[in-house]
Amino acid sequence: MRTTQAAGKIMLVGIGPGSVGHMTQRAREAIAEADVVVGYVTYIKLVADLIEGKEVVRKGMTEELDRAVSALEAARAGKKVALISSGDAGVYGMAGPTYEVLFQAGWTPEDAVQVEIVPGASALNACAALVGAPLTHDFCAISLSDLLTPWPVIARRLDAVAMADFVVALYNPKSGRRTRQIVEAQRLFLRHRRADTPVAIVKSAYRRRQHIEFRTLETMCEADIGMLSTVLIGNSHTFVRDGLMVTPRGYANKYDIEQGGETREGERPGRSLSTGLNGWLENLLDDHAGGESIEQLAARHRLPADYIAATLAEPIEAQPEAAAEDTET
Amino acid sequence: MRTTQAAGKIMLVGIGPGSVGHMTQRAREAIAEADVVVGYVTYIKLVADLIEGKEVVRKGMTEELDRAVSALEAARAGKKVALISSGDAGVYGMAGPTYEVLFQAGWTPEDAVQVEIVPGASALNACAALVGAPLTHDFCAISLSDLLTPWPVIARRLDAVAMADFVVALYNPKSGRRTRQIVEAQRLFLRHRRADTPVAIVKSAYRRRQHIEFRTLETMCEADIGMLSTVLIGNSHTFVRDGLMVTPRGYANKYDIEQGGETREGERPGRSLSTGLNGWLENLLDDHAGGESIEQLAARHRLPADYIAATLAEPIEAQPEAAAEDTET
Repeated sequence: MRTTQAAGKIMLVGIGPGSVGHMTQRAREAIAEADVVVGYVTYIKLVADLIEGKEVVRKGMTEELDRAVSALEAARAGKKVALISSGDAGVYGMAGPTYEVLFQAGWTPEDAVQVEIVPGASALNACAALVGAPLTHDFCAISLSDLLTPWPVIARRLDAVAMADFVVALYNPKSGRRTRQIVEAQRLFLRHRRADTPVAIVKSAYRRRQHIEFRTLETMCEADIGMLSTVLIGNSHTFVRDGLMVTPRGYANKYDIEQGGETREGERPGRSLSTGLNGWLENLLDDHAGGESIEQLAARHRLPADYIAATLAEPIEAQPEAAAEDTET
Repeated sequence: MRTTQAAGKIMLVGIGPGSVGHMTQRAREAIAEADVVVGYVTYIKLVADLIEGKEVVRKGMTEELDRAVSALEAARAGKKVALISSGDAGVYGMAGPTYEVLFQAGWTPEDAVQVEIVPGASALNACAALVGAPLTHDFCAISLSDLLTPWPVIARRLDAVAMADFVVALYNPKSGRRTRQIVEAQRLFLRHRRADTPVAIVKSAYRRRQHIEFRTLETMCEADIGMLSTVLIGNSHTFVRDGLMVTPRGYANKYDIEQGGETREGERPGRSLSTGLNGWLENLLDDHAGGESIEQLAARHRLPADYIAATLAEPIEAQPEAAAEDTET
């Protein structure tokens, strides 16, 4: 134990998926600097090699607010505290509850107690790396736990992102008590996605009991799913080939990969697609001038009519020429 | 250069936000093991200290497919190749295009050339850590680049997640040529969210020119936004206090934080909320038995009528008792 009178510090440390190799250098340093390590018992075990000789506060899964209060008490006593989360401390981790407790206790950034958040690879990054490249396009993270969030909020989110064709990572998909939430999630997805949409269920990524199972949307609920699982649901373009789940980024919209990567007719490298914003707006104006109503355009593009009307009302500006370093794919 | 005849390897390395301290140990090792390092010039500069004496292939931003082809050629020649991405290789990174190129070239996991993906902290994790705890609840990542994705796809996604109250991280929000996409994103968000919704714009997180700006949904487009920026838009509960952006996880739904964390009346620690799935289903059944129609229930809960009908048709099972280690918040 340190005897210094210096002000304490709370370090919110994301330890990554669980193996020390996938922890950042700063996360390791933060744990090394700490006088006290606070965390859920399971996470404490994952960093056992790094915390010998330190004061350790082990808490249960339900005790997030307690963990934050313990950390603040120790920091107010002048200690450096590492408050550890698996994955990233900001993604369903301790960063949120800790700031809530700190604000409640009257803490401000000018307080003697300093706060540092150490980012890490979240479960969705780790699970994706193990199954292929499922998150290469727009994605969402949704927790199926209804212990703090009303079900209609969760259901509306599932419905919205299933419709808008996101890749989705489900956190906390199922527990001993919560077994129907995953079935309801499947029901909402099947309203919008094909039954053979690829699904990967990853349990304990990069830990000793790592287990990966490929399923489809139709059969996902038959998989072994628990509190240590993350469920990755593909979008309408995601495929599984040779045991790898891949979501194409869209290169095939612009380049002919089979023909050595040549640019497709009508497209230009480094420029927006012909169906990108400006090209789309030009077509929209033409179609509207040609007699299609706002409502017809809205229905065809599956976008709100008032959005179509508002965007048609603005003149299209020529795309400015960009500096050389500012070009994109 | 190595002279071994052993088969080569492609390592897809996520280097994290950019500072070496936030890189994982495995990412460092992979770069150290590599004979050849391939990447976008800007990312190569970020790891300059780690690649002395190695063969380096610098590519432009538009050359993702070229980078993958170069990596495969070098690996086929028996070399170990580190193909680097900033953030996480799986999130808008090189993992996707590389598998697309590998499959096109007839590669399978049984090939002599091995592939390893090394996960890292993505831009959204890094930016969140710097501004507070904005991602503590369900979130999405959406790229505003229309260079590979048609605009209506992007617009539908923005509209859906704005409606369903996700926290959203916008990648590639703006470039020298693409200046209107962020204005259209704002327009879509303002249909569903308050004008004073907190927005943080983070440029070059953890790099030399790091810059953080807090705005609201109404004024976000006046901020300094470029290709190295990530834009974080809060949900309806996100607040900014003392320069920190925080999205509450929902503890206040169950616990009275001001009263020392006591459980609220009608709620139980470790169990679903009274408005969780089972409680909600019970109320739904009661309301339906009391005369509310499926359509009325659907409108009130803002969920599809067929979902309400399907879920009402299934009997509610009692929540099973769970093993002690399986309890949650």
